[in-house]
Formats: sequence, structure tokens, C-alpha cells
Amino acid sequence: MKIIETVKEMQGIADDLRRAGKKIGFVPTMGYLHEGHLALVRKAREISDTVVVSIFVNPTQFGPTEDLDRYPRDFERDRSLLEAEKTDIIFFPDARQMYPERYATYVQVRGLEDFLCGRTRKGHFIGVATVVTKLFNIVKPHYAVFGQKDFQQLKVIERMIKDLNMDLEIIPYPTVREKDGLAMSSRNTYLNPQERERALLIHESIKKVTELFKNGIRDASILKEKAREVLLSKDGLDIEYITIADTETLEDIEIIKDKALYAVACRAGKTRLIDNTILMED
Amino acid sequence: MKIIETVKEMQGIADDLRRAGKKIGFVPTMGYLHEGHLALVRKAREISDTVVVSIFVNPTQFGPTEDLDRYPRDFERDRSLLEAEKTDIIFFPDARQMYPERYATYVQVRGLEDFLCGRTRKGHFIGVATVVTKLFNIVKPHYAVFGQKDFQQLKVIERMIKDLNMDLEIIPYPTVREKDGLAMSSRNTYLNPQERERALLIHESIKKVTELFKNGIRDASILKEKAREVLLSKDGLDIEYITIADTETLEDIEIIKDKALYAVACRAGKTRLIDNTILMED
Repeated sequence: MKIIETVKEMQGIADDLRRAGKKIGFVPTMGYLHEGHLALVRKAREISDTVVVSIFVNPTQFGPTEDLDRYPRDFERDRSLLEAEKTDIIFFPDARQMYPERYATYVQVRGLEDFLCGRTRKGHFIGVATVVTKLFNIVKPHYAVFGQKDFQQLKVIERMIKDLNMDLEIIPYPTVREKDGLAMSSRNTYLNPQERERALLIHESIKKVTELFKNGIRDASILKEKAREVLLSKDGLDIEYITIADTETLEDIEIIKDKALYAVACRAGKTRLIDNTILMED
Repeated sequence: MKIIETVKEMQGIADDLRRAGKKIGFVPTMGYLHEGHLALVRKAREISDTVVVSIFVNPTQFGPTEDLDRYPRDFERDRSLLEAEKTDIIFFPDARQMYPERYATYVQVRGLEDFLCGRTRKGHFIGVATVVTKLFNIVKPHYAVFGQKDFQQLKVIERMIKDLNMDLEIIPYPTVREKDGLAMSSRNTYLNPQERERALLIHESIKKVTELFKNGIRDASILKEKAREVLLSKDGLDIEYITIADTETLEDIEIIKDKALYAVACRAGKTRLIDNTILMED
């Protein structure tokens, strides 16, 4: 397994691989890897000749009051986890390499960024689209695997590669959960035992909404009200949003036709947690 | 010479060329080619194995009151000119191919767009950066040749490829002029004989400012004042801006140190004309 720290070297390797006809599979991450990331790496391993994983805590996707400074990092642990998954290359640049002085260029996917997390995390998806564009230009993958936990991020990236004619395929991958249903997240490490317990209400709300949908409820306001009851039960969570939305445009839906996104963002203490599921007729 | 109209076909050809180790040289144009474009094509021919020229009048770089609808077009003429220059491929997509329904993604180079033409042409450089990103992702060139007449455009593109880690080289090419000094432009075709005559004042102002600079004048306000006198002499032009600016940041300079950009935008009748030169100590 190689660890590459410079853009130039990574691009050179990518060129050589492509000229040799090798398929490059890519998993961009911010490190502090968990089973969710490793599932993406295994997916990339399955479909590619060469697997590249990037580890970069991207400053441009954090707001000024967000957790950039305390975002968890442990490169040695990440390295051994990726080695065990037969990763070929870790791309591990520093912030100065990625955003040198006078940096000025940003990629914006208009519309999609106005909903869900974009409402409170202003500029977040510009940061995401920008860094992913950069990483695609550096790693030159044929496939890039993204988790569905960050559903809005997935949709923004899908829209962006289509619009900008980036010649690669996005592979979505289902959310990986702890045994008790909590969606895997590097931020789960922030939770104290009481918060960890309350965080389970998010998955409870997904189960509740899914059950009601299966029982024929199509009115989004009813589904959201029931979700709210679950999320506020016991000691409750601080709800940022509860949404039933179109899976492509992310616009709110009032009455669900064939399918919809149920997505939620909450805080347990200071820790912001997101989760979602697709409600779909069998 | 091949004429390619779809993104998918162009990307497939680019992949094949790259896998075969061929160097792709690219000249993006809006068609209605003149000697200035052809000089760029010859430059690309000189340094590349395969020369691709795109012809696409990009709607996203025109403002609502600008000349998109009347922008001159003559594909058959362009085709024979490019054939004569041994162009290998014309990439000739239509607007629906480039901007399908629900198109939402834009590339912005902040800062550089605030000066010169960006002041009056709001959003113009977002349109330019966006379409150039798309064309680079479609044509996958090793080299892209840009004229220095659109100096701000050149700087925006250079900044963008550096920032977004686009793995290609920008080749700047000097402005090509008519015998009497008028910078070549597809828009010159709009000029009636009287306007064509007045348009020469732009080149006169360049000669004047260059001469003063060579004589040791370093105060930008003096140089701009002398330029203004030239541009307003005889029947005169409508001046949009006269700038002495830093060649990298495009910010106004008061006292020139080693070098500076002199750039001007004027109207002769309804036709907007731009030109520039670099003032530099020998």
C-alpha cells in the first residue's frame, strides 16, 4: 500500500494506471474510518483494479462555528484498517497542498443545496462539490463510491458529475449501521453514553415512518408528525429538520406518490447527527 | 477531419487517444473563426498529435441584454478553414447537449471576476469557467491554447485549472491583429465602415501608453488619462473602462513597478470591443 501526499505524484500514478487499462476505484473520506467507510472500500475493491482512498478533512465544507478543529483524526489507525482491506493507495494531502495561497475557485450545484442540511450549513455543499472536483481531477477514478447516509451529498455529486461531464461513475452504497441501528459516523465518537442512547431515537423514527408508509400513509405531514413524536420521546433530541422530499430534486413533498426520501438532522448534546431512508413501494 | 456532436463520442475518442499515448491539443471557440483563432489552431497543431477545436456559442456567458442571438455563426466556413489547418476533430455540440434540463452546476473563480469586464458583465466569467470545465472534461486535452486578447479570461482559466487541479497545460498566445492594428474579433463583423475607423483608436491608445511607459512614465493615472485622450479623439469611442492592473490579481495599480496590464473596453456604436497589452521593462 502506497501513501501519496502530493497532487503531482497522484496524478502521475493515475495516468500510468489508466494508460495500462486499469480501472481506478475511489473512496473519498475525511478519515477516522469506521465500518461504513470500509464497506465502501470493499465495494471499490470488488469493482476496480486499483483502489484509492483519500483522507482529507476538508476545511471548505465546515462553517465557521462547526467542528473542523475538533474533527477526530487518527492516521495510523486508518492506515492499518485500509491495509487490511487491500487498499492500493492512500491519498493523504495536507490543507496547504489542496488550498494554496490565493485559492479562489469554487463549484456550486444550485438548487439542491437549498434544502435539508444546506438550509443551516450555508456553503457546505460548495465546499463538498469543490473538494470532490479537485479529488476527481487528482485521482482520475473510473468509479467513486459514496455512502447513502449523506444522501444530499450523493445527489449533489451525482448532479455535478452529470452537469460538468466528469467521465466517471458514482456508485451509491447503503448506510451501514451499528447493531442497534445507529448509522455509522465518525462524529458518533463525540457522544457520551446518554447521548448515544438518545441518538437511537433517529433510527426509531426511521422504523416508525417506514412502518406507517408500508401501512399506506402517504401524507407527508402525518409521517413527519409521527417522526417528531418519536424523536422527542424519552429525553428527546434537538430536531434541526424532519423532511419528506423528492429523491431527485430534494424539494418537499406533501403527498407521496411512488417514493420519497425521509431525512432527519438532530443534535444529541453538541453533536449533529443525520440519517435517512428511502420510502418506496415494493 | 471528424465532426463530433455528442459528449459521449468525444469522450470515447479522447480516452482512446490518451491510451495510445497521443497528446491532445485543444482550442475552444465560439466559431465564426478569424485569423486569430487559426493562429491558436496552428499553435495546437505544432505541439500536439491530435488537434480538437470546439465550436459552441455558450449561452451561459452572455448576459440577458447581450448579443447571444445575433452572435455571428457560419459552420460551413469554419469547417473549411479548420480543414485547411489540418484540424483532426471539430467538437460541435448543441446547447441542449451541453445544458440539458435541470442543469444546475457552475464554476466560479472569485476575485478575478470582480475586475475589468467582470464589473459590467455580471456572471460572464462564471459562464466561461463553467463551459471550459465541461469542455476540458469532454475533450480531455493535454494542452489548451487561449488567446491573450481575452486576458482576463486567460487569467480566470489559468487560476481555475491550478485551483481545481485540472491536469493540463494552458498555452497563452499573443493577440493577432489586422494590418492596421485592430485586434481580430468575431464581433468586428458588426462594425460599419465609420465604426471600424473609430475602432482603430483602441490600438492607437495601446501604442501611446506603451510609448509613454518606455519613456519612463510609471504613474497609472497619467497613462490612463493619455489613453482616454486618444480614445476620445476624432469622433471617439464610448469608453467602458481603461485599466492599469496587476497581471496576476487584475487589481488596479497606481504606480507600476516592473510590469502591468493595460486593458480597455469600448463601444463603437453598439459593438463592444476589448484589447490589452502588457507593459513590461525590457
